[in-house]
Amino acid sequence: MNRLVISNIDCNGQLSDVLVEDGRFARIAPVGGEDPQIARVLRQPGLKEIDGSGRKLIPPFYNCHTHAAMTMLRGYADDMPLFAWLSEHIWPAEAKMTHEIMYHGVRLAMLEMLKSGTVFFNDMYFGWERCMEAVEEMGLRAAVADTLIEARGDERIEGFFDACRRNSRPGCDRIQWTVAPHAIYTVGEKLLRRCAETARELDLRLHIHLAETRQENDDCLAAHGMTPTAWLHHVGLLGPRTVVAHAVWLSQEDMEILKETGTTLVHNPCSNMKLASGAFPAKAVIDMGLNVALGTDGTSSNNNLDMHEEMKTAALLAKLTGGAETLKADEALRWATANGARAFGIDAGVLEEGRLADALIVNLSNERLVPGYNFVSDWVYSADSRAIDYVLCDGRILMENGRVPYEEQIIEDARRSAADLLHRLGK
Amino acid sequence: MNRLVISNIDCNGQLSDVLVEDGRFARIAPVGGEDPQIARVLRQPGLKEIDGSGRKLIPPFYNCHTHAAMTMLRGYADDMPLFAWLSEHIWPAEAKMTHEIMYHGVRLAMLEMLKSGTVFFNDMYFGWERCMEAVEEMGLRAAVADTLIEARGDERIEGFFDACRRNSRPGCDRIQWTVAPHAIYTVGEKLLRRCAETARELDLRLHIHLAETRQENDDCLAAHGMTPTAWLHHVGLLGPRTVVAHAVWLSQEDMEILKETGTTLVHNPCSNMKLASGAFPAKAVIDMGLNVALGTDGTSSNNNLDMHEEMKTAALLAKLTGGAETLKADEALRWATANGARAFGIDAGVLEEGRLADALIVNLSNERLVPGYNFVSDWVYSADSRAIDYVLCDGRILMENGRVPYEEQIIEDARRSAADLLHRLGK
Repeated sequence: MNRLVISNIDCNGQLSDVLVEDGRFARIAPVGGEDPQIARVLRQPGLKEIDGSGRKLIPPFYNCHTHAAMTMLRGYADDMPLFAWLSEHIWPAEAKMTHEIMYHGVRLAMLEMLKSGTVFFNDMYFGWERCMEAVEEMGLRAAVADTLIEARGDERIEGFFDACRRNSRPGCDRIQWTVAPHAIYTVGEKLLRRCAETARELDLRLHIHLAETRQENDDCLAAHGMTPTAWLHHVGLLGPRTVVAHAVWLSQEDMEILKETGTTLVHNPCSNMKLASGAFPAKAVIDMGLNVALGTDGTSSNNNLDMHEEMKTAALLAKLTGGAETLKADEALRWATANGARAFGIDAGVLEEGRLADALIVNLSNERLVPGYNFVSDWVYSADSRAIDYVLCDGRILMENGRVPYEEQIIEDARRSAADLLHRLGK
Repeated sequence: MNRLVISNIDCNGQLSDVLVEDGRFARIAPVGGEDPQIARVLRQPGLKEIDGSGRKLIPPFYNCHTHAAMTMLRGYADDMPLFAWLSEHIWPAEAKMTHEIMYHGVRLAMLEMLKSGTVFFNDMYFGWERCMEAVEEMGLRAAVADTLIEARGDERIEGFFDACRRNSRPGCDRIQWTVAPHAIYTVGEKLLRRCAETARELDLRLHIHLAETRQENDDCLAAHGMTPTAWLHHVGLLGPRTVVAHAVWLSQEDMEILKETGTTLVHNPCSNMKLASGAFPAKAVIDMGLNVALGTDGTSSNNNLDMHEEMKTAALLAKLTGGAETLKADEALRWATANGARAFGIDAGVLEEGRLADALIVNLSNERLVPGYNFVSDWVYSADSRAIDYVLCDGRILMENGRVPYEEQIIEDARRSAADLLHRLGK
């Protein structure tokens, strides 16, 4: 049995001893209460114990929209409008990426995510088999898909659906498939409907880019006489198991559709700002009570996978556009943690007995958490990744005292893969 | 003589050996060139040497507007409009802060600044004597003032001017005085004119909050029939030795005044967003060719002193408001580094022989700097403070392998001072 005790740690504001068993929080007991379950375990030899003194146990981040392998394109092209950036730089480079290069990109992405406190990512990219292999090896959670693009042909799309149906790869229950049509401008009505049906048939979540730019909004209005959100609703793609990334350009009616269908919006503030896509309508979305989670988008448009930075930026942008009282610290934290876990059916994101043991251990002596009048404010608005000592996922320690296993090897492999990519690009 | 060699380090894109002598870069020589000056020094006993392999030497940050002692109010009140936040929470707490509490707040601020790569801060607060003492002890650079507010009375203001005149405190040339009238809504015309005269007489820089909120803009128009910028120009306060903080609400004419006078604008994007003050007109300011530096503002409105975060946020906000090509990575980096140093007459911010030896040593194996196609992009858009191994200021090592001397003591003192403050507030 996989057991761990974290002793003398602040958990939900109370000094506690925390027992983790079989991937879940088995017991969270006040320190000094001589809890019999914890006392019994503490007598067992070989038990892993973490001293939580001066530390706090908090929920980790759930990154609900990214393209992990794109760490291989971090800094490859910047500071230009979306379409020129994609068509002149990103797409030509992606055309030369092998699955081996993507595998090392995903490993680099997961190293970065662990270092900044993220245990789950919802991925939309290519090379899903090697992506799942990398996730299984490194111990995070992920939702993985082959990005479905009409122009890539039916055979490839059906091949992916077949793989989902046969459930041919997931080696562990930390990995789920999703059906991920890229966007309404790369996938036509027939395939969108087929995606919705397949997701229903196989009980999978749907993941799509939606209303990211004004151009997408205007083009859809011209082509279909309705907004991108209304169009997706029309083809049956929205619902409580659908996550839509970006969702920047929303009318009042769009927000009502998203509310009625129970769709989750994934806000990507850094990417939307960097690509000048627009400002997410945070105040209206909060006032309407929509489901919101956060994502980093890929590292070629952000340029990192730091959900903490995303959380603070979401709060700042919401206040700038909606007033200083919009998206208070505790709500920004929920967007980055519990809301994301819930959207993907992960029984975690809050620290309670019986829940999956996903958590961060942060050092309360980190200077940015001092004096410490209000931990949530300090964590959301002040801290950075240096405050994180440990990352736990599914009851396992994935980062210990700031160290991730094999990190030097992951960096070296990523550099070698990047050199390979440049060579293939003739650079 | 205070000497240091940094060997085998990437400096301005070339693998170099760097000799620091008497606070300046004495020699930056290509590795393998068998430079005689460096070879001679390397033979001397007791020389301090840093192995720069796999690392890069870059300019540090210059924080051009902050209220350092306000670390004592980090997280004390958040998520509310500017005036309620100030009048109901911040001002009552400040009224109870002793100079001893402020001293420990400044030390905590400097610890945080060093950890995130900042070597200079332009401060506007109270308790200047203890602030200067703290700066002298910890080795950073600073511009320090007593914040001048009309309501505090002539005696206090004249006392500060006298202190400047007698130059009664600076214990080292890393510290300069400034004349810092708080804002146009707390200082009347007569005192503003007196500040301008005193700064001219004593050859000091002027530092003031300007056009931070729409309210300030509208009130000034109503009272004086001109914008805050035009009003400051009218009273003779603008010029090449004046730095104006925030500068959010600017007309085209205001920008022309700021250009003609050679005034430096200090942009504080995180604070302006968090307090919903407004969006700095980055595109127009860049197109006009104005002098811009960056600042963090105080930690009760940000809530940290991380200039790296400020630099990235400035770039993101500029793109959102001005398009994806606005404020490219290299210009954002200049705003955060060289422009700030220049505004305060500090002969640093670029890495050249003869310049003051202020620098950061960053670890190129930090996962956020990998693959590493474009260092400036990776540094501005992807990295965080974890990539910084060393901080040098004035040729001295202020942070070594991530450690600042006495950091535990600084944290402990800050916590004790915060408890003292709460006690004084009856909490």
